[in-house]
Amino acid sequence: MDMLKRLSAEFLGTFWLVFGGCGSAVLAANFGGDGNPLGIGLLGVSLAFGLTVLTGAYALGHISGGHFNPAVSFGLWAGGRFAAKDLPAYIGAQVAGAIAAGFVLFQIASGQPDFVIDSASPGAFATNGYDALSPGGYAAAAAFLCEVVLTAFFLIVILGATHKRAPAGFAPIAIGLALTLIHLISIPVTNTSVNPARSTGVAVFVGGGALQQLWLFWLAPILGGLIGGYLYRWLGNDGD
Amino acid sequence: MDMLKRLSAEFLGTFWLVFGGCGSAVLAANFGGDGNPLGIGLLGVSLAFGLTVLTGAYALGHISGGHFNPAVSFGLWAGGRFAAKDLPAYIGAQVAGAIAAGFVLFQIASGQPDFVIDSASPGAFATNGYDALSPGGYAAAAAFLCEVVLTAFFLIVILGATHKRAPAGFAPIAIGLALTLIHLISIPVTNTSVNPARSTGVAVFVGGGALQQLWLFWLAPILGGLIGGYLYRWLGNDGD
Amino acid sequence: MDMLKRLSAEFLGTFWLVFGGCGSAVLAANFGGDGNPLGIGLLGVSLAFGLTVLTGAYALGHISGGHFNPAVSFGLWAGGRFAAKDLPAYIGAQVAGAIAAGFVLFQIASGQPDFVIDSASPGAFATNGYDALSPGGYAAAAAFLCEVVLTAFFLIVILGATHKRAPAGFAPIAIGLALTLIHLISIPVTNTSVNPARSTGVAVFVGGGALQQLWLFWLAPILGGLIGGYLYRWLGNDGD
Amino acid sequence: MDMLKRLSAEFLGTFWLVFGGCGSAVLAANFGGDGNPLGIGLLGVSLAFGLTVLTGAYALGHISGGHFNPAVSFGLWAGGRFAAKDLPAYIGAQVAGAIAAGFVLFQIASGQPDFVIDSASPGAFATNGYDALSPGGYAAAAAFLCEVVLTAFFLIVILGATHKRAPAGFAPIAIGLALTLIHLISIPVTNTSVNPARSTGVAVFVGGGALQQLWLFWLAPILGGLIGGYLYRWLGNDGD
Repeated sequence: MDMLKRLSAEFLGTFWLVFGGCGSAVLAANFGGDGNPLGIGLLGVSLAFGLTVLTGAYALGHISGGHFNPAVSFGLWAGGRFAAKDLPAYIGAQVAGAIAAGFVLFQIASGQPDFVIDSASPGAFATNGYDALSPGGYAAAAAFLCEVVLTAFFLIVILGATHKRAPAGFAPIAIGLALTLIHLISIPVTNTSVNPARSTGVAVFVGGGALQQLWLFWLAPILGGLIGGYLYRWLGNDGD
Repeated sequence: MDMLKRLSAEFLGTFWLVFGGCGSAVLAANFGGDGNPLGIGLLGVSLAFGLTVLTGAYALGHISGGHFNPAVSFGLWAGGRFAAKDLPAYIGAQVAGAIAAGFVLFQIASGQPDFVIDSASPGAFATNGYDALSPGGYAAAAAFLCEVVLTAFFLIVILGATHKRAPAGFAPIAIGLALTLIHLISIPVTNTSVNPARSTGVAVFVGGGALQQLWLFWLAPILGGLIGGYLYRWLGNDGD
Repeated sequence: MDMLKRLSAEFLGTFWLVFGGCGSAVLAANFGGDGNPLGIGLLGVSLAFGLTVLTGAYALGHISGGHFNPAVSFGLWAGGRFAAKDLPAYIGAQVAGAIAAGFVLFQIASGQPDFVIDSASPGAFATNGYDALSPGGYAAAAAFLCEVVLTAFFLIVILGATHKRAPAGFAPIAIGLALTLIHLISIPVTNTSVNPARSTGVAVFVGGGALQQLWLFWLAPILGGLIGGYLYRWLGNDGD
Repeated sequence: MDMLKRLSAEFLGTFWLVFGGCGSAVLAANFGGDGNPLGIGLLGVSLAFGLTVLTGAYALGHISGGHFNPAVSFGLWAGGRFAAKDLPAYIGAQVAGAIAAGFVLFQIASGQPDFVIDSASPGAFATNGYDALSPGGYAAAAAFLCEVVLTAFFLIVILGATHKRAPAGFAPIAIGLALTLIHLISIPVTNTSVNPARSTGVAVFVGGGALQQLWLFWLAPILGGLIGGYLYRWLGNDGD
């Protein structure tokens, strides 16, 4: 497959991840206002993020590998499954897709008269944060640890479910639902990143604290991805 | 497979989509009244819509291809997978199935003494709408953009998951759960169409604004379907 | 496979369906009391019923075919996939498994000091009902129509997903999630049966109206199952 | 595969089960405080537990078999699928992984200023309990019966879905979603164990009643696992 199509697939897949995951959070999580159980809540947002990856991986995985996430690209490189020379282009396409999604989501959300973004509010426009910008008020160290551990396990699932000894064809289910699980655990802690492109795609439209705290959502997921990648490289090596 | 059976499968599949998706919204979304968390809410309705397609595609996909949606038929034509000459008959069967489902749903819903349809209320009898008929009060431009983008990605998932290089057999899971995801994002915006037959099948029993706004839920999904179809036709063409 | 093992599998699978589906309704649906969103609600109960069949069919389907439901056995006979001579034994095993599950569930539920069954309350101990015993107050005709339509489509999904042209191995996913979908639509109408054994397994522990109304939950599902079975027998016959 | 890697896989998989399942309960179940529907509730926790096993089994099952649970290891031995000599090492690795997960979860949860563990409160830090420590106030006998029955069926699903006549590759879906189902039924009864390692991994950080009641969550799941294992050994034996 030529590189233009691979990068287009990464652009589209990351667009879908951010538009679908962050879109469900911005548009539908709290539908009807505080205390209204009609909204999809954190459970619905968790499901939405996972389904963007499940569906994107079945649709686009055979074109680009279906990373949609710089931490995944780094982790696949650490796991011996991705070439270092392709990292910059992949990450560029992912960040571009994420920002494009943030832009389109902003246009739609602005179509409601009451829409405002309060950049001092945790999780505004689905941004990630810690300390005063953590949805549940978690400190930076807890946020960092949480993002590292969850991204490391995300890579273990990705590398394991695509291993040659794993049953073929099921990897997008395992990987997508792993992202759902990750959100079920950690939305209260950091609003859940494990994906620097996803964090960037919405932070640039909010600015302020979301941008200032963006470093953590690049550093921790990539560190976690590298840990998971190296760990599975050893674990899954059966000497064949 | 002969055309009568193909059209019967499209009729039944679209009936199932409208009866199941709109039925869950009308009968169960707000069970117990405002504020009662027993009801299935927007998350349950999103799951129901997706499961109609997941189950219908496994049951009927091998007979008709499992479109159940005029925007999908147009998109598959744009993607080079469906013959233009079959479009009118398929769309006719889909609309007929949707209206039949609306009729049966109306009979069941009327079996509750309190049942009324207030055609001025957003989402009445699961109809789609914008401006004053948008569940969350979204303007027509936002509604149009949202329907176009989501239907385009729906077609990307459909064409990608049924591509010859995608793992065989999993497409109904990817496609059905893509429809769940689409609803998780956009019920507040338009009550979610991405399917002109689904919109028509309930609008004809509500009349008023639902019928007047029906043009958007034909135009935007079909436009989105064509965009997604042409885009994937290029993306998935690996020169074989 | 010998008949004793087949009947044991039907007994266990129907036990699992009733214990899991009705158990989630009795023990967890309204956890914490009225208005408490911690409970799993109708969405959780719908998921539970579907997962009993999804998991039971993967575990036991290769032994008995995984009916777990007299209406399914009748529908498979109408569809030309099951021998009439085996109907009585299968249905006997299903009803026995359902009643055994109701018994064990009653023992566990009674372990909470506040547990009482009010046989005049709709859905008491997860029983099915219409009119005054319909959770949403639906009349008998609506209840009957709803059970017939849903069981007919359940059989269409079952026969279609196990058709020789459907992708192999996925049927338990399609069938289980079809049962989830059916519950997402119709719990407010009849508390959802589509399965005479499931209705019987809890009604015998409640008595009163639940037993008096039990006829409908034998008649309507079996009628629906026969309609779905005959319909798919024609639809799926590709002349091979 | 060498034993160090197998035990590492069991350690990691059980870590993931406890960190993900108990983590979702501790961090996200009641997000926003009592009565707030944004939290994921018992339904979200049920889904999280199941997805840890679904994802862990696809990622690590081809290395260790993917038990992640001493009751599963005992049940697989009873079912004739696991060697008795490997039981001690597997169970050691599982308990170590569970305690490590409890430790990391404690570090993250402590990152919120309001975090406290009240060891007299049912379900504190996701511990299991009966009588005064049962979330719904269920007596010890009901708790014991519930854990035995559910673990027995868990093993029936595990042994059946991995049987040579079951469709290949789907077992992690069936097994993971069986664990979701088990939680949908029984969180109110015991906070759901069916896994002695999971119970131990959090109880050691709570002490008090959680530790005193830990015996039941070793005894009942292992007894249930043995019953399910022996039962399926007979049921699934087709004489080949």
